[in-house]
Amino acid sequence: MRLCLNGKLMDEAEARIAPGDRGFLLGDGVFETIAVRGGVGKRLAGHLARLRHDAEVIGLGLPWPDPTLVSLIERVAAENSLTEAAVRLTVSRGVGPRGLLPPATPEPTLLITAAPMPDFSEPVRLIVSGATRRNEHSPLTRIKSTNYLDNIIARREAADKGADDAIMLNTAGRVAETTIANVFALIGGGLVTPPITEGALPGLMRADVLKLGRGEELPLTVEMLTNATEVFLSNALGLRAVTAINGAPVGDGEPGLITQLLAARL
Amino acid sequence: MRLCLNGKLMDEAEARIAPGDRGFLLGDGVFETIAVRGGVGKRLAGHLARLRHDAEVIGLGLPWPDPTLVSLIERVAAENSLTEAAVRLTVSRGVGPRGLLPPATPEPTLLITAAPMPDFSEPVRLIVSGATRRNEHSPLTRIKSTNYLDNIIARREAADKGADDAIMLNTAGRVAETTIANVFALIGGGLVTPPITEGALPGLMRADVLKLGRGEELPLTVEMLTNATEVFLSNALGLRAVTAINGAPVGDGEPGLITQLLAARL
Repeated sequence: MRLCLNGKLMDEAEARIAPGDRGFLLGDGVFETIAVRGGVGKRLAGHLARLRHDAEVIGLGLPWPDPTLVSLIERVAAENSLTEAAVRLTVSRGVGPRGLLPPATPEPTLLITAAPMPDFSEPVRLIVSGATRRNEHSPLTRIKSTNYLDNIIARREAADKGADDAIMLNTAGRVAETTIANVFALIGGGLVTPPITEGALPGLMRADVLKLGRGEELPLTVEMLTNATEVFLSNALGLRAVTAINGAPVGDGEPGLITQLLAARL
Repeated sequence: MRLCLNGKLMDEAEARIAPGDRGFLLGDGVFETIAVRGGVGKRLAGHLARLRHDAEVIGLGLPWPDPTLVSLIERVAAENSLTEAAVRLTVSRGVGPRGLLPPATPEPTLLITAAPMPDFSEPVRLIVSGATRRNEHSPLTRIKSTNYLDNIIARREAADKGADDAIMLNTAGRVAETTIANVFALIGGGLVTPPITEGALPGLMRADVLKLGRGEELPLTVEMLTNATEVFLSNALGLRAVTAINGAPVGDGEPGLITQLLAARL
């Protein structure tokens, strides 16, 4: 695999993350997952604006101008002969002295990798994670940080129960999102998704779905979700129908019409 | 600096963490900080038992036997000519395919580094973090994972306010711990610390303090802490007196007697 590390294109085997990198030691980083279609990055302005916002939340300035990042994102996909790709852009705070306090002038690490676009045509079965909760009291739920261990725990729980993904509840016991996607439900003919304050990541695709689908933000209980006509997930790579939650079918157990129409448009 | 990566001793400049390491990409790791005094690791059995426990919580088996780890911990301190050292042992889940689900047979990354023992003789001034909360509903508060971004946010907040460390509240608004230590208070002549269920890490030093100081676990409000006779912090590297919280003195504003007596014994 070809990748980009700190602005330089190289083979994966040549790329070295330093053992003192705070991304490795402390999860001190943020990232974006970007869809590349036909060789062109989608929603790039939105992704880069969010990356800068997220970095700012953790007090990290990014020295690379947007056009440089755009060029590198598409270049990494092309170097791997991928016209349809999931490109990941990871920024960590780089190497620092021992302790939590970041260095005054950090030299961030920038890693850009590309993978084939995953297949989202199959619907997914969800469980509701009982192992962990999402902390809506932390600013981390509103940024894409590299602190993914809660999500990994919930994803393992889903696999153990034969499901594809897990709904993560917030500390109040309401629906926040899944381990990798925002959650939408069709309830009483209207499209709804939990507000950001519930612990949902402000996804770019989420915003597009809300707009195109005339959706509304509404706190959701698991019961509301299981009784919904349709449920689907959204993230930067696309929309996926949900056909079961905790083993019980959603609606008639088939991907919903609204889900399919929206997925085709986004 | 000399360090140990996957069982091999080498210079820091030679050590390479792969860009696909889940520790770097997803914070998929756990660690221990171990005091080495007079060249000998302290509480090693406890640290290694907790490391294995924590790894198990995230579903990761550790292939290295305890005697190997003990030998490497003390060796890394010695290779850096440190008889008094803070040794950090970090284990990540290593490289895996794209996505959150861990590989079926992970090859974990093991990194052991040593730093000079920090000076804990000076008392610390605390603030109460308003920027983030600790999630007592997550198993991560009970293990030492590398997901430290909430703590980093709180530590930066402390620095911005001229303090040395920050008290992190849990989602119920009670005291959990600081960004790097457990919290103890002397209230009505008795030593108290928040229970693990409040979002406090089950620190090894915490257990020793509870035993030696005949302490009790008790949910603590910030008010209880600010009105305490003495407050101190504990972690694997030692005890530190707290002389101010949010700018107001604790007790008479000097390190407390019980704090100093316990610190000298542990």
